[in-house]
Amino acid sequence: MEPGTGNTPAPAEENKGPSKNALKKAQKEKEKAEKAAKRAAEEAERKRAAEANDASKADYGELGVLDDPNIPEGVPIKSLPELKDEGDVIFQAQVDNARSQSANLAFVIFKDQGETLQAVVAKSETISKQMVKFSSGIPAESVVLVHATITKPQDPVKSCSIQTIEAHVKKIFVTSKADVQLPLQVADSEQPVYAEGEEPSQEEEAARPIVGLAVRLNNRVIDLRARQNQAIMTVRHGVKRLFREFFEARNFQEIETPKLLGASSEGGANVFEVTYFNKKAYLAQSPQLYKQMLIAAGKPGVFEIGPVFRAENSNTARHLTEFVGLDMEMPFVNNYHEVVSLLEELMLFIFNGLGKRYSKAVEVVRSVYNVPEFKLPEAGKVPRLAFSEGIQMLREAGEKIEDYEDLSTPQEKKLGALVLEKYGSDFYVLDKFPLGIRPFYTMPDKETYNKTSDPNAGYSNSYDFFMRGQEIMSGAQRIHQADFLEKRMREHVTPVDPESPGLKDYVNAFRAGCPRHAGGGLGLDRIVMLYLGLPNIRLASLFPRDPQRLAP
Amino acid sequence: MEPGTGNTPAPAEENKGPSKNALKKAQKEKEKAEKAAKRAAEEAERKRAAEANDASKADYGELGVLDDPNIPEGVPIKSLPELKDEGDVIFQAQVDNARSQSANLAFVIFKDQGETLQAVVAKSETISKQMVKFSSGIPAESVVLVHATITKPQDPVKSCSIQTIEAHVKKIFVTSKADVQLPLQVADSEQPVYAEGEEPSQEEEAARPIVGLAVRLNNRVIDLRARQNQAIMTVRHGVKRLFREFFEARNFQEIETPKLLGASSEGGANVFEVTYFNKKAYLAQSPQLYKQMLIAAGKPGVFEIGPVFRAENSNTARHLTEFVGLDMEMPFVNNYHEVVSLLEELMLFIFNGLGKRYSKAVEVVRSVYNVPEFKLPEAGKVPRLAFSEGIQMLREAGEKIEDYEDLSTPQEKKLGALVLEKYGSDFYVLDKFPLGIRPFYTMPDKETYNKTSDPNAGYSNSYDFFMRGQEIMSGAQRIHQADFLEKRMREHVTPVDPESPGLKDYVNAFRAGCPRHAGGGLGLDRIVMLYLGLPNIRLASLFPRDPQRLAP
Repeated sequence: MEPGTGNTPAPAEENKGPSKNALKKAQKEKEKAEKAAKRAAEEAERKRAAEANDASKADYGELGVLDDPNIPEGVPIKSLPELKDEGDVIFQAQVDNARSQSANLAFVIFKDQGETLQAVVAKSETISKQMVKFSSGIPAESVVLVHATITKPQDPVKSCSIQTIEAHVKKIFVTSKADVQLPLQVADSEQPVYAEGEEPSQEEEAARPIVGLAVRLNNRVIDLRARQNQAIMTVRHGVKRLFREFFEARNFQEIETPKLLGASSEGGANVFEVTYFNKKAYLAQSPQLYKQMLIAAGKPGVFEIGPVFRAENSNTARHLTEFVGLDMEMPFVNNYHEVVSLLEELMLFIFNGLGKRYSKAVEVVRSVYNVPEFKLPEAGKVPRLAFSEGIQMLREAGEKIEDYEDLSTPQEKKLGALVLEKYGSDFYVLDKFPLGIRPFYTMPDKETYNKTSDPNAGYSNSYDFFMRGQEIMSGAQRIHQADFLEKRMREHVTPVDPESPGLKDYVNAFRAGCPRHAGGGLGLDRIVMLYLGLPNIRLASLFPRDPQRLAP
Repeated sequence: MEPGTGNTPAPAEENKGPSKNALKKAQKEKEKAEKAAKRAAEEAERKRAAEANDASKADYGELGVLDDPNIPEGVPIKSLPELKDEGDVIFQAQVDNARSQSANLAFVIFKDQGETLQAVVAKSETISKQMVKFSSGIPAESVVLVHATITKPQDPVKSCSIQTIEAHVKKIFVTSKADVQLPLQVADSEQPVYAEGEEPSQEEEAARPIVGLAVRLNNRVIDLRARQNQAIMTVRHGVKRLFREFFEARNFQEIETPKLLGASSEGGANVFEVTYFNKKAYLAQSPQLYKQMLIAAGKPGVFEIGPVFRAENSNTARHLTEFVGLDMEMPFVNNYHEVVSLLEELMLFIFNGLGKRYSKAVEVVRSVYNVPEFKLPEAGKVPRLAFSEGIQMLREAGEKIEDYEDLSTPQEKKLGALVLEKYGSDFYVLDKFPLGIRPFYTMPDKETYNKTSDPNAGYSNSYDFFMRGQEIMSGAQRIHQADFLEKRMREHVTPVDPESPGLKDYVNAFRAGCPRHAGGGLGLDRIVMLYLGLPNIRLASLFPRDPQRLAP
């Protein structure tokens, strides 16, 4: 760091006047420029006054936007307690808060990756009053580069996550100064979001007014800094890693199927239309047809982690218009329960992995969202119920429902509660869904197919997975023979045309030989929400998308 | 397997007549139904005749589409040579070809996951002539379940990849019968695709006519079965794995940023428009703004593997409208060369990983596309040239080019050749691009910024990576201060409005404090194409998308 460099005003604050290209904004520009000029003048004045008698003028200040600090590499603050030797260190961190104790003493709390560290800036022979004052005035959330000596405090620093050490600042440079007035405080975001219908208690409201979800999401960059939001994203990362690890260990191939389709392939509803040069294209609602085609292409088993798009105008706490799908498809030899068993194993692998490898993050979330722990089945035996059994349980509990009728959301939740009561598990599988409520590519159940005049009566080789009574996965054995597939397309409750451009290639794939196969599609955001018991799926997504929200 | 089950015609072949929902297609349906009825009658006749005197009628046939074979699990054929005991096995495979040697002897070649195995079906007390005939008549590409005895042949089976064993078939069931006339033969796809301007030799054409790329891609499910195409996808999987492994080891977080944006954020050109309920949305051209916002949100470093969309009407051998981006962004402490060095290390990690862990797949591709091996720099020292040095080299080689002018594609290729000649490396980095040809968020170079009246003159802290003279990555230090970012947006060669809806949230992210950061975006498909030296990028994508192609 060259002396003085740190105090050079950033070029943005210089008054260059409006550029040729911004002429239409001349007035706005002019006001901006005047403000900047004023700021620059004030800054220059401060600087002159300060430098007149400032022993540490080279050791603090704001780094110019184009400048490099010319220092060796820094270390993350979380590594500091493990340093063998006390001594000098350099680190980059954000300011959690800074305050002046006296004209000679300032306290600054630094934060980085969920850890906080207390630092002291004390007047001395090498540290001027001006530097103390500067330090105590750094706005919260600013990013700083710090040279400091690490010491052990007499008492643990109770207000910080790092309690066994504190830092004595020797140099401090602001590399990015935050606005003093931010539209959202990180502390606001560290309060829980309340579910619809739920209300904070009077004490909670009195302690700190609860900021609504919309404001938080409008300022998601600040919101994501809240401890539990960082932890939610760590858990999300964990689910993905565990999913991938499971299938890579079994030699599945990770695929990326196209998101732009020439025709809306899975029926026409809920699909986003794209202007594709002089044609129309459609956004993929799932990788369904493509992952099946890849099994037909001879892949040993495939999985995909990628965006799926649903043009569903559902403004609920559990729907997004864009979310991340965890999809898989595989050939099998004997029957589709081979695949169901593997998927049950997958989910247990994910749940156990979260409990073991991501327990710290899970605990942080639980400290804010105090939801009952996610209950796993004893001895790893996942309850697998036939759909007809589920209907029976619901009827015994007083629900009116037909044999082949789909479950409503309240019925799903009720069945989840009944299963939890009976089997002690928040996770269960419903197998053998009615054929009539599943997509055309679903393999009918041999025992009940075509036994009446209605080709859509009876059951099918399909299954849903549930967490806390909400669906997280839908899957099935798929039809692997082209002629039968065409027949089902035509006789389906919502018929589709096998000759249509979007389906012809798909049907033809099965004319070239395709093993029997099954698979499923999980919703990553749903799994995260339900495992942690979050009140809203938007909390599980970095930048959620719903019918009303396309920004940030 | 119950006797006879295998020969039950599939339901698709039964004549049920048109369903209520398909009435408008009655005529077509009727013709279909008549054909199906005729087929079923012929089948029944064959069956009657055959069963009259068939000792093995329960041991072969076609499995009904709804039927399970009721067998224990099968094994992949590639595991068969490692079996300790010769003896009986069950496997599922595809028929590569089947032929009759005599009325008493058939040869069938099975294939699975790139391996081929020879099998014999020989008349015996338990194997009937009918079964031998059935076996020799199974169409190529059909999927079969086989019970067989494994034996060691006297001589190695030269025509197969598995040469040390052969299978003696005891039972064989077709689970998916392929059409006899397929629109493309796998053997056709095992020939190379020729680059534009290149032609197959007369001998090559005489041996087997070359099928064009369009026909192959139209029948991509069959095309992907070709050995080199399987191997290309293995290499592709390898690049992704290595990329992810590299960043996970460094505790980067894998992210998924939204693909649906409320405004076209990176300038208006080349963006696909989506109908989003009653509004307009746009498909993300890169995760650029979002990965930066996540650094502002406090992430330690992020990466993403996901689709990017470019509405560029470029019908070339190296452009796709949808491809997979490998993106990363990270904070740094001292200067952006920290990030460039890490990215160079990443690329060497990927190249070395491909050479070591995926060498078998690379060799298979090389056996078809005989391209010079990809040359790595000696001692791992990646040539890193300043843009101005590159210009100098081109001028010395006779090119006319201005200081701050962007390179044309032929100039890029020429420079690649010059670098290969001088440094012996197919991979190199061009650093310090002219500011005027980079996006608005690029950090200017301190030494040359604002030295003239033109705010877009001078260089920038940005870099491109090249393989075989073609760009595979573009990256830069990004502006991390809101005021300066706004200034650059306004003074940029193509000005954008910082107050516009798509950019306001982005700019504001930097008002909340953001570390200095840099990153880059790689094209997965490009890396695969250039590493292997493929003549067309479409060969590196499972289901490529270009201005003319949205299917399959």
